[in-house]
Amino acid sequence: MKIFEWSPIEYVSMISRDREIEYNFASGSPDPSLIPVKEFEKIFQEVIEEYGYRAFLYPGAGGSSELVRNIEKYYLDKIGVSLRSDEEIVIVSGAQHGIKILSQILVEKGDIVIVENPTFWEGVYPIRFHGASLRGVSIDEEGLDTYYLEKILREGLKPRFIYLNPTCHNPTGYVMSIDRRRHLLEIAERYDLYVVEDDPYRPVSKDPPPSLKSMDRSGRVIYIGSMSKIFAPGLRIGFVITNKDLAEKIKILEQHDFSTSTFLQLAMSKALEKNITEALMKRCSEHYDMKRKILLEALERYFPERYTRPVCGFFNLIYVDKDPEIYVEKAIERRLLYVPATRFFVENPVYSIRIGIGLISSEKIFDGIKVLREIFEK
Amino acid sequence: MKIFEWSPIEYVSMISRDREIEYNFASGSPDPSLIPVKEFEKIFQEVIEEYGYRAFLYPGAGGSSELVRNIEKYYLDKIGVSLRSDEEIVIVSGAQHGIKILSQILVEKGDIVIVENPTFWEGVYPIRFHGASLRGVSIDEEGLDTYYLEKILREGLKPRFIYLNPTCHNPTGYVMSIDRRRHLLEIAERYDLYVVEDDPYRPVSKDPPPSLKSMDRSGRVIYIGSMSKIFAPGLRIGFVITNKDLAEKIKILEQHDFSTSTFLQLAMSKALEKNITEALMKRCSEHYDMKRKILLEALERYFPERYTRPVCGFFNLIYVDKDPEIYVEKAIERRLLYVPATRFFVENPVYSIRIGIGLISSEKIFDGIKVLREIFEK
Repeated sequence: MKIFEWSPIEYVSMISRDREIEYNFASGSPDPSLIPVKEFEKIFQEVIEEYGYRAFLYPGAGGSSELVRNIEKYYLDKIGVSLRSDEEIVIVSGAQHGIKILSQILVEKGDIVIVENPTFWEGVYPIRFHGASLRGVSIDEEGLDTYYLEKILREGLKPRFIYLNPTCHNPTGYVMSIDRRRHLLEIAERYDLYVVEDDPYRPVSKDPPPSLKSMDRSGRVIYIGSMSKIFAPGLRIGFVITNKDLAEKIKILEQHDFSTSTFLQLAMSKALEKNITEALMKRCSEHYDMKRKILLEALERYFPERYTRPVCGFFNLIYVDKDPEIYVEKAIERRLLYVPATRFFVENPVYSIRIGIGLISSEKIFDGIKVLREIFEK
Repeated sequence: MKIFEWSPIEYVSMISRDREIEYNFASGSPDPSLIPVKEFEKIFQEVIEEYGYRAFLYPGAGGSSELVRNIEKYYLDKIGVSLRSDEEIVIVSGAQHGIKILSQILVEKGDIVIVENPTFWEGVYPIRFHGASLRGVSIDEEGLDTYYLEKILREGLKPRFIYLNPTCHNPTGYVMSIDRRRHLLEIAERYDLYVVEDDPYRPVSKDPPPSLKSMDRSGRVIYIGSMSKIFAPGLRIGFVITNKDLAEKIKILEQHDFSTSTFLQLAMSKALEKNITEALMKRCSEHYDMKRKILLEALERYFPERYTRPVCGFFNLIYVDKDPEIYVEKAIERRLLYVPATRFFVENPVYSIRIGIGLISSEKIFDGIKVLREIFEK
């Protein structure tokens, strides 16, 4: 049976359309003040001047060679991700598109895929749709519990791959420690497993630890990068780094949709060339760190000991006593939007709310958490 | 086993990259002189002025409500496609993305899907990838042979759906007659079959017959529209019209990639509002008709009785004596690019070449066909 399910995120976004929302804790979009709108306005004009009609022709599978080159030349170093000589960069229409295509390549019906528990619901939906069952491994302040992972593998579990978001985890906000990263890579090598590293928050985070990809000596890490948090999600540009065999398969499946706009690929390529990335990374990581501190204060005041403590990224969880799905409408009446996160748990679900501080302005965070507390007090 | 195959189109495009091509008969892109580049330059600025950062946030599943509304208000009537009250418009990242998602929804492993023989290789690749086998029904100057279709259905064949490109067929250039359209719809009703109408060339064609969708009384036609031929393929905007149940499933699966850029959806929406469509349709249909006439003259001179006679659209076939895959490199040496079309036949393959007159300038068509003849004389 095919699984058709609305994402908890998309669901609350739909039911709140045309409603006035003052406290939007639901969105995964970046802070409006950080999106380089003016720069893109200029870049769009430059692309049209330089490429003319060619910016409007069909994209090829795998992406624009200019953009691939510029990601390698101007971007990977800055974010601390390395590219092995036996690997390639493939452009996709956002990280989510990369996960979808990888699922189509890697997953066979009946496979088991290991994910963090809780995990990013939308990220794992394509994995489930293509026939895998998810096995959750719990996550704590040091990230995925690699000791438990090792245990279940030793007992004979044969997963198809491991999908995780080790840096600024969605939804907990945790960061995997270096030791656990090292341990995970050892395990991947020992059991010959692919590790899919979903890593959208790295460029907007203060001093993140090295990516799994950059620590990876055996070529088992498939890296998924996103331009959505650092530049803008409306462009739909992400990339995958993997070995040449998988890279070719991704390109081949891109023939199914050719969904990444030629024009926006050229615009993204030009944005990288202009070297605005570094300044943007600094601005973003400082701004989100400031927002995070406000959030932590509010959480400590209104939900003491009932939240996961975010280190970076956009998200964390608040644990609640009542089913948060039922209170969404009440919250909307108070002009507050959150994502019920209970379904982010693939095992042992816990009533919880995902708090996102990407879109909401810093001035609204404290009051918003107060309102949320009022809603869940009743 | 999963099917990983390069499209014959993508393949020749890749091997000719960085080679000088004077006669490009391979591309499916529209004529550069017809792409409204200046208009889009202005529209892009207007979108940024009007929406600011909001044009750069995440797109929702199903597409921008502005664009959906404007397709209904400013576009469907003009191209002669009707929307029933029990149907919806869903935005996709180009027609190909629509076919891909429909394949994921409709196809179960082992299904049979009926297509024209020959058919559009890229259009049917996702259908094959998701587990269907294709059954070809031949096509002649009146379109799909509905009598043969009726015969095999009467004999007990139970296909999952019928995929076809009845207007300006890719690759033959044929147009399905009204009688055959009527017959097909009767058959679809009698055997309770979905008919997927892939219809990208309608807006750039002179007086096309009514769409199957507009003749459809039973709601069995799923219509796939494209903005790629009339506006530009680099925007990656198409749409699907279908009943509310399938429409919801398409939206749900769009959560797997969210691949249609918010910015470009708003730009397309604005382009429709500006009412440039009618003038563009007229200019395009006249220009391509002119190119088609030049092509017909050249075909009659150099390949008499060895070609399918195109009525409209970008494509037709030339039949050749030798395996055209082998001659691609020789043709590139003569700065000519074509697509070997043998693999466009799902049954009884015939050595053939697909000729596309979208991208090539009208001045090059006649000489190009002459060069092609020289290549296939040797």
